[in-house]
Amino acid sequence: MKISADDIYKSVQKIRVANPLIHNITNYVVMNNTANALLAIGASPVMAHAQQEAEDMAAMAQALVINIGTLSSSWVEAMYRAFAAASEKGIPVIIDPVGVGATSYRTETVRGLLDAGRPAMIRGNASEIMALADDELKTKGVDSASASDEALYAAQIISEKNQCVVVVSGAVDYVVLGAVIAKVANGHPMMTRVTGLGCTASALCGAFAAVENDIVSAAVQAMAVTGLAGELAAAKAAGPASLQMHFLDVLYNLTAADIRDNLKVEV
Amino acid sequence: MKISADDIYKSVQKIRVANPLIHNITNYVVMNNTANALLAIGASPVMAHAQQEAEDMAAMAQALVINIGTLSSSWVEAMYRAFAAASEKGIPVIIDPVGVGATSYRTETVRGLLDAGRPAMIRGNASEIMALADDELKTKGVDSASASDEALYAAQIISEKNQCVVVVSGAVDYVVLGAVIAKVANGHPMMTRVTGLGCTASALCGAFAAVENDIVSAAVQAMAVTGLAGELAAAKAAGPASLQMHFLDVLYNLTAADIRDNLKVEV
Amino acid sequence: MKISADDIYKSVQKIRVANPLIHNITNYVVMNNTANALLAIGASPVMAHAQQEAEDMAAMAQALVINIGTLSSSWVEAMYRAFAAASEKGIPVIIDPVGVGATSYRTETVRGLLDAGRPAMIRGNASEIMALADDELKTKGVDSASASDEALYAAQIISEKNQCVVVVSGAVDYVVLGAVIAKVANGHPMMTRVTGLGCTASALCGAFAAVENDIVSAAVQAMAVTGLAGELAAAKAAGPASLQMHFLDVLYNLTAADIRDNLKVEV
Repeated sequence: MKISADDIYKSVQKIRVANPLIHNITNYVVMNNTANALLAIGASPVMAHAQQEAEDMAAMAQALVINIGTLSSSWVEAMYRAFAAASEKGIPVIIDPVGVGATSYRTETVRGLLDAGRPAMIRGNASEIMALADDELKTKGVDSASASDEALYAAQIISEKNQCVVVVSGAVDYVVLGAVIAKVANGHPMMTRVTGLGCTASALCGAFAAVENDIVSAAVQAMAVTGLAGELAAAKAAGPASLQMHFLDVLYNLTAADIRDNLKVEV
Repeated sequence: MKISADDIYKSVQKIRVANPLIHNITNYVVMNNTANALLAIGASPVMAHAQQEAEDMAAMAQALVINIGTLSSSWVEAMYRAFAAASEKGIPVIIDPVGVGATSYRTETVRGLLDAGRPAMIRGNASEIMALADDELKTKGVDSASASDEALYAAQIISEKNQCVVVVSGAVDYVVLGAVIAKVANGHPMMTRVTGLGCTASALCGAFAAVENDIVSAAVQAMAVTGLAGELAAAKAAGPASLQMHFLDVLYNLTAADIRDNLKVEV
Repeated sequence: MKISADDIYKSVQKIRVANPLIHNITNYVVMNNTANALLAIGASPVMAHAQQEAEDMAAMAQALVINIGTLSSSWVEAMYRAFAAASEKGIPVIIDPVGVGATSYRTETVRGLLDAGRPAMIRGNASEIMALADDELKTKGVDSASASDEALYAAQIISEKNQCVVVVSGAVDYVVLGAVIAKVANGHPMMTRVTGLGCTASALCGAFAAVENDIVSAAVQAMAVTGLAGELAAAKAAGPASLQMHFLDVLYNLTAADIRDNLKVEV
């Protein structure tokens, strides 16, 4: 597998032309920025969490993004319903297990969702992906040389168990499908001081998965675009709030040259 | 009827002096920007959706804005209560039927609200207004020359049926009350890539209805201000996120000259 | 007691090094900006309102901020649970009684919370603090020379009754603990045209209380930082939306000199 700047730009163009509908059941903190990121890249966001319409909305979308950042029981019920409806129709589902491991409620919710269906992709940071693989990491023991080694190992466990792509985002993002590992080195440290850019990355994974059937490629493309838009925004920013603004403006204006000149992907 | 730049600026000044309280039961995605738009124009926003206080809050407001963007059953119940309390006191109610037609839950919710009371105004985009008039459009048949003709026809149906002003927003906004049709040609295409500027328009309709008793005038004034603030913001913007920022700054600084030099209204 | 620019900067440095976890149960309107303000100053925000995890999250935080801006019954239940869990562990709790007095539901909710536990701090504007002391103000009578005198008197009543620090924010902020009164004169009038900067102040009170055990000092430091960041942001802003953006960028970049050159505190 090889992912070129050209491939990525082709997907961006597809999103801009097709305006795929991305159904998000996500957290309150990031809804506005998530919707704006999807609009900026060319997709059509919809946020809908009512149990009465979760299935209808998911069934008409081109991707479903489930993010547990501010979960509660009625929202979790809607996540199950939307997940089932999307799976029934073959619509790719992205799960962002925000804060899994921090409370048992989050852990049980994500495990329950993963028992109920097969997502196309799970995207989290290292601690979240390690929390998901906690039992297996404890059982098998880990002799990793570093935290990122351990996260990568956890991602492989979760990928195999759930037969899906797992993205571990960080200074370097790992995109894992079984033995396949791709690395995306785009990004900027100031992005960690903006709330919800990880959630934005998950939403963009949905947009790319809506136009690119190969889910590893879709994940790499989305993470690369998120990271390099962050770099370009940081270069213009005086702090995290102007970074957020420039990030959306960069996504909207993204050119083939922006991608070609900044891409740091290794498969 | 004639609406001049002077009339509009007089209403802006009234809002700035009176700081009318605008009660919003709106969606999670846009709450922050809606509140900021109301503050920028000079109004006082309040967001309150608890069933325990929906009536109290509506009864003390100068306008009520109901937006179903991220509805769920307890919020819908609060919408009914607030709507009844506002109607009882003669407070103008604006309904924004976000996504009506996309799911039957949204359609039934809006129809239920319209059966329960008479709003001063309904504001939506062409597909939403057409979805509201769906049964009548099918029954009567439509021989419209264009989509905007059909939306306009739908607006007239809905206006007559509900005895209220209907605003169809788009590249050109139509403000309809029975046979009266006003057109507002202000606006900028990039506004469609910012989430919730339609919701902002509805909230501003509330602010203008709070100070201008003639609801057609209030709607035209609000849509003109939204559109021309969007134009002025787009002229300074590098993309949709900076457009959103400049939009609020423009509203805050709006002068009589801004309105006079940019107004594109036709009654 | 004396609070110097040096003391404030030391607390900022502690926040930047320790990244204290601040658990917020807050309103929908401000969640994004609150999280971003906490990230910009160096803290780690978490928003969590599910009854299933409110206690777990509060118990692992370094401060808990309860804000009733868009309350509903299930959220209020989570507030009680988190409050109890934080109190049990000695974690400082900040209460922001948004809109108390506007509806009886808000008033009863805040009174119920204050009956159930002792917060470290209550932060509100003059009308909110006066609403909280309403019964006592009526009973005792008030012969205040001005509204700010009355708010100050109300703050003393509430401080004594609840044995906690009370902050009344306005053009001048008052930090009150019984007979101790500190004044912070930092701030800018345009801040009142940005939604949720008061909520941001409450969240920053949480961040400072996480690293500064003296709650009067923590409150003064947080209000001073909020106010002077607002001043510095306003100097660069064209309106309230650019003020919000610069505010977060200023927090992120805050230097010892920024504080020293702008501090207006009087104890």
